[in-house]
Amino acid sequence: MKTRIGIVGYGNIGKGVEKAVIAAPDMELCGVFTRRGLSSDDIVSGSAEAFPLGAAEKMTGDIDVMVLCGSSSNDLEEQGPMFAALFNTVDSFDTHAKIPEYMAAIDAVAKETTAIISSGWDPGLFSMMRILSGAVLPDGASYTFWGKGVSQGHSSAIRSIEGVKDAVQYSIPIDSAVSAVRRGERPTLTARQSQLRECFVVAQPGANKALIEETIKTMPNYFADYDTVVHFIDDDEFIKNHKKMPHGGLVLHSGNTGENGHVMEFSLNLDSNPEFTGSIMAAYARAAHRMSREGLYGAKTVFDVPLTYLAEKDRATLIRELL
Amino acid sequence: MKTRIGIVGYGNIGKGVEKAVIAAPDMELCGVFTRRGLSSDDIVSGSAEAFPLGAAEKMTGDIDVMVLCGSSSNDLEEQGPMFAALFNTVDSFDTHAKIPEYMAAIDAVAKETTAIISSGWDPGLFSMMRILSGAVLPDGASYTFWGKGVSQGHSSAIRSIEGVKDAVQYSIPIDSAVSAVRRGERPTLTARQSQLRECFVVAQPGANKALIEETIKTMPNYFADYDTVVHFIDDDEFIKNHKKMPHGGLVLHSGNTGENGHVMEFSLNLDSNPEFTGSIMAAYARAAHRMSREGLYGAKTVFDVPLTYLAEKDRATLIRELL
Repeated sequence: MKTRIGIVGYGNIGKGVEKAVIAAPDMELCGVFTRRGLSSDDIVSGSAEAFPLGAAEKMTGDIDVMVLCGSSSNDLEEQGPMFAALFNTVDSFDTHAKIPEYMAAIDAVAKETTAIISSGWDPGLFSMMRILSGAVLPDGASYTFWGKGVSQGHSSAIRSIEGVKDAVQYSIPIDSAVSAVRRGERPTLTARQSQLRECFVVAQPGANKALIEETIKTMPNYFADYDTVVHFIDDDEFIKNHKKMPHGGLVLHSGNTGENGHVMEFSLNLDSNPEFTGSIMAAYARAAHRMSREGLYGAKTVFDVPLTYLAEKDRATLIRELL
Repeated sequence: MKTRIGIVGYGNIGKGVEKAVIAAPDMELCGVFTRRGLSSDDIVSGSAEAFPLGAAEKMTGDIDVMVLCGSSSNDLEEQGPMFAALFNTVDSFDTHAKIPEYMAAIDAVAKETTAIISSGWDPGLFSMMRILSGAVLPDGASYTFWGKGVSQGHSSAIRSIEGVKDAVQYSIPIDSAVSAVRRGERPTLTARQSQLRECFVVAQPGANKALIEETIKTMPNYFADYDTVVHFIDDDEFIKNHKKMPHGGLVLHSGNTGENGHVMEFSLNLDSNPEFTGSIMAAYARAAHRMSREGLYGAKTVFDVPLTYLAEKDRATLIRELL
């Protein structure tokens, strides 16, 4: 019996989940739920109907797991508890500071459902590496570097500046910082020492480029604390080279057992951030369904889910082939 | 209340476990059990008594987890089931082909104990990366490269050759193979294409070096299928440069979501293989104790243990600080 999946929110991540679910032999896409009135013709794979958000509550018998693909800042604080009360859910809630509060709100309603929160790659896979490496080498320090990749938030911030037509911002780990950690030095790194911000900007005709550059570089929170490089490019180059959503990063942990040093490193190099995130969420949707069938209800995180639950194959096969 | 640890077998890994347990604020070393008659003066940390193996069965009330540090080929097939019947256990059983059979033997007796098998780094952490990456990117392929590091088995094989006084063998991943996987090519690699074998040999005075080199390079299973480099060195250089037990390696997974490619990579760079392995086993000893208190009995693997069980801190703190 396949796991019947619903997708809530149909932006880039929702489409990434769709792609992963369609490719999985043990899952079936049963519906896409959006606030906007999408028609079923809008569903890329053509494999499911589109429904308005409000239709979901009458479909509790038709869907095993709802994958929540709305944004953490606008949608999930409301949608997370709303859906977890009725369905098993998976989300990628990524406002780190608010996770405990969000988790408590979900846990309060997930009495007969399994709700896996924050299941992307950070929070998500990177968090798993932080907990694993810290448990194995407690006399050590973990470092997370993001990039090279597009930061949507920073790109939007640039686009909000007067005279900017389009813009993309790449976060890039600084090699010397990464190398110092790999050497086991456990450096104390400022924001500026760990990450470079590189911006590609298309200006409106006649705009004051010097002013735009100055505005970017001095923008508090987003850029002022970093070394920022600004390139002005034309529309053609923007469309040709900056329309993809690559991302990646690494979690490095250096630690000691007495005089002996050890380095653990986990890195991602992704052509498409939303498709990779969607693939992770699909694997955790499989886990949520399995856990719910075992009565493991409540709000869960990637720290709580045994790895056997993520893979399509059964436990004995996984142990034989992969252990 | 601290987790009371017993160590069974006191070679390099046993000493690595000892070091990790002594450093952990929530664990206490309560005894070292060996077949040979060690005296308590032999225990490096001086933190525990030495006991003969046979003394263990009367100490079920004194020890929470027995960490089994004997060898997979000689000790564990007998000791694993013997101890798992009486104690929670952790081991690093690493004969991949025999894991299902070994696990079944343990599971049959671990009726009121938790027995975590195969918990080193391969099998162990590397296995976790293989299952995780395969679950997230099922349209993909995983590659495991070992090294640069000392292979004890290959070093012993060289030492068994007539005229060899001492020897060490390093396994080294071949860069071109690693790079091809990183580029997402999913190559089919022979043993020779993935790994180089580099040997440092001290010959007996008057030994026939050409014959030793030929014997090494043509040794079936161990060397014949690889490119092997042999260096003859003297005692001084051997003692100065080749007495450590560094190791490491990487698990690479390249996969696709449609036309987009992604690479996941996990690597280890270890000054001391046995101390790192001992640190992993200590973390899983903590998990075994916790799982047994929750009644999660039977033979378990790293695929079955949620990550929260490994770390000293409580779940809420881990979620707040590391998710």
